[in-house]
Parts: sequence; structure tokens; C-alpha cells
Amino acid sequence: MAGSDYGTIFKITTWGESHGKGLGVVADGCPAGIPLDESMIQEYLDRRKPGQSKYTTPRKESDQVEILSGVFEGKTTGTPISMMVRNENQKSKDYSEIASYYRPGHADFTFDAKYGFRDYRGGGRSSGRETIGRVAGGAIASLFLKQLGIHITAYTKSIGPIHCNMADFNAREILNNRVCMPDAQAAKRAADYLDQCMAEKNSCGGIIECVITGVPAGIGDPVFEKLDANLAKAIFSIGAVKGFEIGDGFLAADATGLTNNDAFCTDDQGNISKKTNHAGGILGGISDGSPIIFRAAIKPTPSIGAPQQTVRTDGTPITVEIKGRHDPIIVPRAVVVVETMTALTLADMILKNMSADNRKILDFYQK
Amino acid sequence: MAGSDYGTIFKITTWGESHGKGLGVVADGCPAGIPLDESMIQEYLDRRKPGQSKYTTPRKESDQVEILSGVFEGKTTGTPISMMVRNENQKSKDYSEIASYYRPGHADFTFDAKYGFRDYRGGGRSSGRETIGRVAGGAIASLFLKQLGIHITAYTKSIGPIHCNMADFNAREILNNRVCMPDAQAAKRAADYLDQCMAEKNSCGGIIECVITGVPAGIGDPVFEKLDANLAKAIFSIGAVKGFEIGDGFLAADATGLTNNDAFCTDDQGNISKKTNHAGGILGGISDGSPIIFRAAIKPTPSIGAPQQTVRTDGTPITVEIKGRHDPIIVPRAVVVVETMTALTLADMILKNMSADNRKILDFYQK
Amino acid sequence: MAGSDYGTIFKITTWGESHGKGLGVVADGCPAGIPLDESMIQEYLDRRKPGQSKYTTPRKESDQVEILSGVFEGKTTGTPISMMVRNENQKSKDYSEIASYYRPGHADFTFDAKYGFRDYRGGGRSSGRETIGRVAGGAIASLFLKQLGIHITAYTKSIGPIHCNMADFNAREILNNRVCMPDAQAAKRAADYLDQCMAEKNSCGGIIECVITGVPAGIGDPVFEKLDANLAKAIFSIGAVKGFEIGDGFLAADATGLTNNDAFCTDDQGNISKKTNHAGGILGGISDGSPIIFRAAIKPTPSIGAPQQTVRTDGTPITVEIKGRHDPIIVPRAVVVVETMTALTLADMILKNMSADNRKILDFYQK
Amino acid sequence: MAGSDYGTIFKITTWGESHGKGLGVVADGCPAGIPLDESMIQEYLDRRKPGQSKYTTPRKESDQVEILSGVFEGKTTGTPISMMVRNENQKSKDYSEIASYYRPGHADFTFDAKYGFRDYRGGGRSSGRETIGRVAGGAIASLFLKQLGIHITAYTKSIGPIHCNMADFNAREILNNRVCMPDAQAAKRAADYLDQCMAEKNSCGGIIECVITGVPAGIGDPVFEKLDANLAKAIFSIGAVKGFEIGDGFLAADATGLTNNDAFCTDDQGNISKKTNHAGGILGGISDGSPIIFRAAIKPTPSIGAPQQTVRTDGTPITVEIKGRHDPIIVPRAVVVVETMTALTLADMILKNMSADNRKILDFYQK
Repeated sequence: MAGSDYGTIFKITTWGESHGKGLGVVADGCPAGIPLDESMIQEYLDRRKPGQSKYTTPRKESDQVEILSGVFEGKTTGTPISMMVRNENQKSKDYSEIASYYRPGHADFTFDAKYGFRDYRGGGRSSGRETIGRVAGGAIASLFLKQLGIHITAYTKSIGPIHCNMADFNAREILNNRVCMPDAQAAKRAADYLDQCMAEKNSCGGIIECVITGVPAGIGDPVFEKLDANLAKAIFSIGAVKGFEIGDGFLAADATGLTNNDAFCTDDQGNISKKTNHAGGILGGISDGSPIIFRAAIKPTPSIGAPQQTVRTDGTPITVEIKGRHDPIIVPRAVVVVETMTALTLADMILKNMSADNRKILDFYQK
Repeated sequence: MAGSDYGTIFKITTWGESHGKGLGVVADGCPAGIPLDESMIQEYLDRRKPGQSKYTTPRKESDQVEILSGVFEGKTTGTPISMMVRNENQKSKDYSEIASYYRPGHADFTFDAKYGFRDYRGGGRSSGRETIGRVAGGAIASLFLKQLGIHITAYTKSIGPIHCNMADFNAREILNNRVCMPDAQAAKRAADYLDQCMAEKNSCGGIIECVITGVPAGIGDPVFEKLDANLAKAIFSIGAVKGFEIGDGFLAADATGLTNNDAFCTDDQGNISKKTNHAGGILGGISDGSPIIFRAAIKPTPSIGAPQQTVRTDGTPITVEIKGRHDPIIVPRAVVVVETMTALTLADMILKNMSADNRKILDFYQK
Repeated sequence: MAGSDYGTIFKITTWGESHGKGLGVVADGCPAGIPLDESMIQEYLDRRKPGQSKYTTPRKESDQVEILSGVFEGKTTGTPISMMVRNENQKSKDYSEIASYYRPGHADFTFDAKYGFRDYRGGGRSSGRETIGRVAGGAIASLFLKQLGIHITAYTKSIGPIHCNMADFNAREILNNRVCMPDAQAAKRAADYLDQCMAEKNSCGGIIECVITGVPAGIGDPVFEKLDANLAKAIFSIGAVKGFEIGDGFLAADATGLTNNDAFCTDDQGNISKKTNHAGGILGGISDGSPIIFRAAIKPTPSIGAPQQTVRTDGTPITVEIKGRHDPIIVPRAVVVVETMTALTLADMILKNMSADNRKILDFYQK
Repeated sequence: MAGSDYGTIFKITTWGESHGKGLGVVADGCPAGIPLDESMIQEYLDRRKPGQSKYTTPRKESDQVEILSGVFEGKTTGTPISMMVRNENQKSKDYSEIASYYRPGHADFTFDAKYGFRDYRGGGRSSGRETIGRVAGGAIASLFLKQLGIHITAYTKSIGPIHCNMADFNAREILNNRVCMPDAQAAKRAADYLDQCMAEKNSCGGIIECVITGVPAGIGDPVFEKLDANLAKAIFSIGAVKGFEIGDGFLAADATGLTNNDAFCTDDQGNISKKTNHAGGILGGISDGSPIIFRAAIKPTPSIGAPQQTVRTDGTPITVEIKGRHDPIIVPRAVVVVETMTALTLADMILKNMSADNRKILDFYQK
């Protein structure tokens, strides 16, 4: 089954393996006339690039993107935008041993079960490098949304037991520290915790939070294509995500109707809004005009240097210590992936929903 | 945008409003030759029917399903199966006042924002009755999966602060008590808690857990069509769901690689399996042969009798007390909805994945 | 595989068999606020109803449509519109013999090959009655297009050897004679030819032509989703269609560039148009503002009373004379099916294409 | 709207413009384990390469394909196969004048109408070079089908008034003469006719016929996803196609039931087959086990050197003589495009239909 494309109207198709010739994406359905060049994509890719700090794999990859089609005279043409990043540092030899056994927490075993064999070099298509295509394609969606006044900001909410203090939220900090936390003090404590994990050849997980502002009320569909349902799928399609919640999320299960309902009110400009935002900006699957807020739980990096029990592909037991240096945490590099998957979901939903109100279509054709 | 269909190969399309003539579903893509009659569907619908206990709305609806097509001589024919439930008890008059204001926690405001107007009778398409079509269609998916040896069991894990003790898990209890808990003692405490909520004209939320057994390793796709991503969307498409997690879920964010990785081992029959199941049965988006386990957080029923602040559709403030009797909790009736949405997702994924292994196709055509 | 739905944004799902309880359609994605009642749908259904002339089966069916959802206070709500027609005259007994052999020209054999068994009563899902759902759903698309100033007119171009003289084209004649020809003289000759076919227990084929006016230039997509490619699929999905051509069609294969190219010119209002229309209103898969013109070839009704050779389901030879009275020609009743499938295709394409021009989206969100 | 992908389970996404950096395709959903290397794709691409005879544009392009992903150790891995052909000979200067006016018979005007502007270099996405991605992706589908014993052969049936004599059909001739005709004598006469067209700075059209053998009975779906409906869309999505017919096609409109119905019979091996094949191998949208036969009408190349009237983009009239040398006929190079689009359609349909018969699924899971 084809499963490498995402979206209906604004759609991406990604391709590439960790240790193949390269990775890329075809972004189709982007409206014509949007200014676009490689530097605008590169800015997003650089946020997920390896080798940026001691907490990311030192694999040297410049991850330079090349736009191959769909842009003419500096603007999108409305036709598919193909982008590619060549792999530069694929040392297949390093992975020869890994072919013989199943790494715990990885997809080695399930790939073999599904396909009968696998590209054992670096996880193939289940590698974190697969997200290069998502980020490049999602960057275009983000740029499109910015033109509509919609902004998406994701950040690290927690790393292991270290949680940001949201009273100290500072958006500028997110791109300023190595762990993408909006709270400089928490970022320092998180760094200490990560040092400890690395010393123990261990790894840890964390939580990413994402806030979307500028979405008008009325985006989303009421039944299966709820905006939150689509965001849930988008975020859960990112490897290592184990949980997703919107607004108060799991806390809502413990709440009562009186504490969880958001009262409607009228603001100074006469617009209807909500006094609180327990719902996280979506009611009945449709945006309500408040900021949309969700969180994703990310599991610890499965590749760790400490000894682990597992089996060879023939079923015999083996104790392994995974070599090479791996990120002790996935979270900071996943922040931009969450942001761009969110952008793809929202851009597609807005374009799909253009027709929701017949009056708008009639305006369209009758002027 | 059309958003009332779910699935690719095994697909359902639902229709109907709370206070229209009826509700229904067209289930298309079900394999031919599966025994099916109305009683087999009715069994699932009866689990979500209103009026079964004092914790569900006393609205009298027999919710009798009629199969209109796609079954011949007691078996599915491979063509679309249309099913309908007529509404019997639609008192539109009761809802006339509701048309004038926006109920907190409901989709009234977002429907107006999206469509320009709404069917204000009982929430129209955002009513819980919308799930009738899902349950009827999902019942067929469940029956198909049972033929493959796959069984899905959902139950109430918690109601407000009352959590089941999983050491006391008893599957027979689920259909035996009014709150669908597998722990009879917790069910009693939950009943007391619900009585208190009702006395206060308040409502509460809870958590549903779902376990799937019998899924062979290898189901799911590695990138956007991960099995867990599709389950996340399926469950989040159910109204009132605010969180979804698989395996250890949000706890994985606090874990380390050493504690979160599941060691592979070989069982007595020589099959490769896992010693633990922190992953919840899915690795890299593909089933690993272990039971699949996930949880959904359900918010409190938004319709409560206690006074709440909101605005009229023209923006003027108003304090409302929502009349009529409403379920103080959504969770017990949502259990079968979770089960059937899970069945739909899994049946579709299995059928989509039939082609994953070329050897199987060649077998097919060459024998 | 599910194959009973058509469209992406404006989508229909049809269900029902010739001799089941009924047939119907769920139309999803229709914009909100369009005036709709059952009489507006019935007008289209009456054009395909049996028993209207001696050239159509005398099976008595009133084919009364019931709207079950999606309409509130006389207008579409934007949610799925479910419609049903109950079968009234299903005499299953008549078809008992047919179960034992494969009718030439019918889908009996291929259904058995595909599904392993079939609903042998009247062709089940391959019956012409299957088009009831298409016509009901397409009627809504037609009404939507009329609001945009787009009109679709289909008619019988030829019946067997009898061709309309297009110099005598009279649109009012189409609904005025029993064969839906826009040329009254040709209609009389066609009637004579049909009388002769019936006397010989034989049947005949014909050609339907369809003209669409009011489509602005710019509708369609350049590669796989060409407007003509989608029309081709839509029309070829109607049973008995064996050919489809647009503009000059097969004659273009004999033409030269000089005779086939349409010269662009500027009309009195300063609009760019074409001097001729060999292209049939579509260039590069995108509408050019000229009328869109296409034709469909319809095969003779396969059910004939004259003796035919075939085999029983066990492979033994048999000579059959198909009993009962059948339409000696499919064409006149298929005219409205062509019209409504065209409407569905165009409505969906227009809604999908709303986003083609970024400027329009920005207008949308910024006003 | 995204419109650059084709297929559901076996899916391709194409990208690239005539004068951009290159063109390519991502083929997703190909089963794992099929032997594949670049030479196997190149064989198909070479059949549509320019510069092969005096009847094709002398533009020098080696059109060498590079496989970028999805193949490991000589076999497909089941993950997306990305392929690219770099453009070598893009002289954008040649096209500067063309930007100022609308070429008759081309998509210049409709692209401007749709997108607001266009990549005027060589037609951009509406160029014949767009088919490179289709052919590369379809080559994989063809290789997959060969493993199932399914073979597709397309050829030129006619060029302008020169028709092949099918009594002289010789499959080896197809790849042997410059016009891809299976009749050597007709090929010579066609060459003379083309010489004459070129001398007159004119062009001509023709007909391609395609025969598919080895398809078992039972492939296709009965309603909207008929096999012939999908073939119609596939073939009509190829630029310059103006007509499509299957079996007797438009001739069926003139036939009677007695002459058009194919009698079923039982062959020596006891298999049920048909005595004739007026239907072209498909009944009720489902393959009947006979060879599938269809034809496509191709219009004359719109780019001709003879003077033509048209308008500038501002609407002022102009007479143009299109410079450069262009193929006087599209047909021979389109033959492999028809073949590969057919392969894509059939491969996808077979994979989608794997689940049609429940018994097969149960076999699958129970062995």
C-alpha cells in the first residue's frame, strides 16, 4: 500500500532512505504565486539538521535542499514542487552488524514482518532522516499560512522530569537554546539531565507543545475530518510519538462539565470569543477562533549504548550495545517536524474548506 | 468539503441528524460471503442505545437497524451495505430556545461560523446520535476481523477520579455494569460519583482503554499511514475525545531508553515476541504481534443543568441552564464507538496491506 | 474494494440492488444554503423512470425519492444528504431461471468470477436501476451549477443508423419526444427503427451528445486530473458505454494541425475566445471558456428475446430466450444519467479548483 | 488542487517542467522484492526519447534515469521509488517570443486563466516531456504485471488516413519501424504521408490500439470504479487524446443486440470463455478473461510551422509561424505512454481488488 503521501488538496509525497542516495519530497497543490526560494526552505531544514549540539548525532550532513521544479521567476507556479537533499555521509559498513539482529524499540522486526526483508542501513525508511521531506514540504505550507496571518509555534515543554515554567515563557528562547525550550532556566536544567543520560549511555523522552494563532473560526469538518482528528494523525505519523492531546487533554478526563466548559463572551470589538480555552481552540472538530494548543509525548531515543537483550533475526538471544553516537533525545529536533506537519494539516484543511460556505463560491464566480 | 466517509478499501459513509428523519451508514468494500443479518448489527447498536440506565438520557429510541442492501441469502455480496435507523422521538419544539444562543462546550458556534447557519435541533450532525452510523458500519468490520481471529475489547478505565484496579480485571464485568468497567468494585464507586454529579447538575469525564488481540506482525505502513496514526485519527474523530495515547503513552515522555525499550525474545514455539509491551503493540507504525493497547481521554458532557454564562447568537450575554435530562457522562456509551472505530481502522489497514508482500500476490495469481 | 463513491469534495456514495429493498445515495460536500426539496430531485428521476413509453420496460415503479437528511428549513445544511427510493415491484421469482446461466452481454459471469457468487435477481448491482442514486445525487450537483450559471444539456444524437440533423437542433424537442432527440423528424424515424427492433426481438445502440455552457476558462488540472479525463471516467462508469470522445474526437485522428487547431480571437467585449471549437472546450485538460462538447457511444441492450447461445454456470451449453419485456434501447433513459454524471464531475472539479489561484484565497481571508 | 498523482495502492506522483532542472516520479506502493535496476526503466524511456527519427523533435536529450530510493540490493523494498531525469537541453531563450502570445491548440491560454501566469518555456507542465515520469513509473507497473503473466502491447493503428491492415499484424514490427505500426507496408505508406505533412509545415493525428492479455476474469469494480472507466481516465489524462473506445467502441452504437452480444462457450480445458469479443474483454466494468482491447484517438501536433492566426496575451490579433522543429505526429512516441498508463491502472486495480473475495483473505491469514 502506498503510504508516503499526506494531504488531499495541498499534498506531499516523501521518499528516501537514511543511507540511500538522498531524500526528498514532491509538494503538490500549493497555490500559484507564492514567493519561494531554496533559502526559505533551508531555514526550516537547518532546525532539524544533525550536528548542531552535543545532544544531536555528530553525523555530518549539510542537508542542502535543491528545488527541482514548480518554481518560476521566484514564485510557485501551482504545479508540483520537487525538492531533494542528497545524503553525504552514508557509511553503510557501520550497519552491517545491525542487519543480523532486531534493535529493541526500533522497526527492524516489524519491517521484516511486513516486507520479508529490509534496508538495514540506518533504519531505511523508518529513520529520523525520513522527516527531511516532511519539513521541506511543510515549510511551504508554513509560508502559505503566514500569508493568511496564521502562525505556528512549537517548543519543548518537558525533557524527562524537567518541565518548563510557562510563567517564564519567552518565544525568543525557543530557537536560542539547544533544547528548544521557551524557558531559559528549564533549558539549563534539561541540559544537565541530558548530560547525565549520556554519561549512563541512556536516553530520555519529553513533550512538545504547539500553539497556532490566527486561524479563523469555522475550519474543520464535523464528523471524520475533524481538525483535531487530522492533527492527531499528522502528529502520530511522526516516529516516536506515543501520545497526543488537545487543550486540557487527559486532564479533561478528570474534570467536570462546570470546570471544563469554556464560557462564550463578546470582546471589545464585538466579536464572540471564549473566556477560557480548555477546549484548545476546537469545538466539534471545527476551529473556534481561539489559539489551537496541543501536546505530543515523545518516547526516549531507542538507540542507546547501554547493554540490552534482544534476538538475532533467526531468534537466538543476544545482548547488544548499540555503537556510534546517537541523540540522547529526539525532542528538540522533532520540534520543527511537529510545526511543519501542523502546517501541512492546516493548509490542506483550509483549502478543502474553501467550499464550505456557498456564499463564498457564489461571490467567487459572480464578481 | 465531504468529510462523512472513513476508510479507503473498507469504507463507511455516515449520514443523519439528531432530529431529522433518521441516521444511517453505507458500508462499502466489505468482502463478499460474510454471514450478516440485522440482529448481528443490533447487538452493537444496543450497547450505545439511550435509556439503558439512569446515567443515560431517557430519550426513548429503540434504534432498530434496517439493512437496505448488500446482503443476499444471509451473506454479504461485496456491494455496499446500506443501513438505517429511523428517529422516533424527535421533539423539535424542545430545542427552539437553544437556537438563540451558543451552548458552552458544544459546536453550535463553530457550525454557525462554518456554514452560516445550523440545524439547531439537538446539535444536528454534531450530536452523539451521529455515532449510530459508525457503530453499525463498524459492527461489520468487527465481524470480519473476528473471522481473522482478531478481537477488540474496549472498556471504561476511569470515570472522573475513580480508576479501575487492573489487577481486578474481569472482561465479563464490562457488559455487566452500567459504566462498562472491568472492575465491579470500581464500577460501584463510579456509580456513587455519578450520582453526586447528577445531584449537582454537573457532569464528568473519563478514560476508555482498548485492547486488540490477534493482529499478526506486519500490519501498518511506515510513514504517514502508520497504524497508530490511523488509530489516533479514528479515535479523535469521536466527539468529546481530547487525548489519545498508545502503550505507555504520556508516561513514555518521562521514561528513559532503558526502561521504555521492549526486549525481544523467543517464545516456546520459536516465535519472536517481546518481554514487555511499553510500545503498545506497534513499532515504527507497524504491528509487532503483541496486543495493541491504547487509551482515549473523554471530556465531561458539555450539557449540564447548572447555570452557565454564554452569549446569544447576536453576541449579547446570557446565563443559561440547559433543560432536559442529559447523560452526566459520555464514557460508557462511547465504549462501543471506540471499539467499532478501531475495527474499521484495522479492517481497512489489513485490506490495504494485502499487497505489501509480493510473494503473497504471486501466490494468489499462480495457484 | 470500495468503488461505490464518486468525487473528492462534492462526493456521492450510491447503494442498492435492482431487487433489494431500495436504492439510494448519500451526497456529501454540497455547499450549505442551496434551496432543495424532493420535487427538485424527482424532476430528474422522472426522466429515467421506467414505463414512460413503449420503448421502456413496463416495470411499474414510481421511483419516489425521500430526502432523509442534510436539508433543514428548505436549504442544504452542508452535511450529507441521504436520499432513498424504495423498490416496489421486485418479483424475484421471474429471475430464478436466470440464476442458472450467464446472460450474454451482461455482468453475470464477471460478478461470479469476482465475488464467488451473485445476487442474480435482475443483475443486482449491475442493473440499470443502480443509476437512480447517481441521478438523485447528480441532480443536486446540477442545481448547484445552475447557481453558478453553468448549464448541461444532453440528448440522443443517434439511434442505430438514425442520426439527428444538427441543423434542425431544437432544445425543446429533447424532453418532448420519447427518444430524447433534439430533431423531431429524426425522432420519428428512430421510433420506426425501434418498432422494427422490437418486432425482431432485437435491440439497438446509439450515441448521446452533451453540451456544457457557462464554464469559465481555468477549470481542470494539467496532468492526471484533466477535466476531460475526469469526464471520460464519469461517462465510462455508466453501464453500456463503449466509447467517449470530446470535440472532434476520433475525427481528430484523421485531421491535420491546420484543420484541427482552433484560432484564438478577441470578441466584441474584449474577451479572448476561439473562432472554432474542434477541441470541445478543453485545452491541456483545462476549460477554455468555449462550450464543452462530448459524445458517448452506448451499446445495444444486451437483454433480447431472440434465441442466443450461452452456458450454464457449470459450463454446459444452452440456448436462451430472455423473457419479460426489456427496453429495446438504453439511450433515451441514459441521457439524464450522462447529464447528472457530468454535473457531479464539474461541481467537484470547480470546488477542488477553488484554491488554484492564490489571490482568490487571500481575498477570501483578508476581507 | 493537487493533481499530479495517479493510483490508490500502486501510486505515482510526477513532477517537472519541460525547461526546469529535470522531471521525475515517485512510485509508491510497489510490492517488495521485485527485481529492478535503472536499465529496466531506461528501456521504456528510450521508446519515448526524442531524436530517434526524422519524425521526432531533434532536441538532444539522453533522458537517462536515476533511481534515488526504494531499491536495495537489486530489489524493490516496498518503499517509494524516486526516479529523476535531468533536462540537458533547455534553451529558455528560444521561448521568449512564445510568452507573448497564445499558441493555438496549446494550453498556454488555459494555464494563464487557471494560475494567473505560466512557465512559458516549452509549455512547462503541459509539455509532452511531462510523460517521462509516467513512463518511468509505469515501467515498474509493467514489470510487476509481467510477473503475474499479464502483458500489454500498444501500437499505432493509423496515422492520418493510413490504417494498418490487421490481417498483416506482426508484433515484432512495432518496435522495428519509426511509426510503431505492426504492419510494415502501412508503416511505409505512413512515412510517405508524414513526409508530405512536414513539407507542408503541417502535422497529423492517428489512432493507438492497445491489447492486454493474461488478465484473469474478475478484475474491476461494478459501479464507479469500473476497469474500463479507469482505463478511460488513464488514457484521457495523456495530452492530445480526444477519444477512447473499448471493444467495438463507437461501432457498438450502430450494432444490434444480436450482433453485439458475445456468446459464452466452454473451451477444451473446461473454462468458460466467449466466442467473440465485441465487448473488448470487460463486462459490467469487470474483466471477463478475454483480451482487453481499446483504442485512443490522438489529435495532430498543435505546433506547426505554417502561419496561424491567434492573439497576444493582451488580446491583440497576430499571425504566428511556430519556429523550431516539432514532431509532425505525436502518435509513435505516445505508444509507450499508453502502455505504461495502462500498466499503472491495471496494477493498481489488481492490488485494490485483492480483497474482493473473502475466501482469499481468509486463506491468507489462516495458512
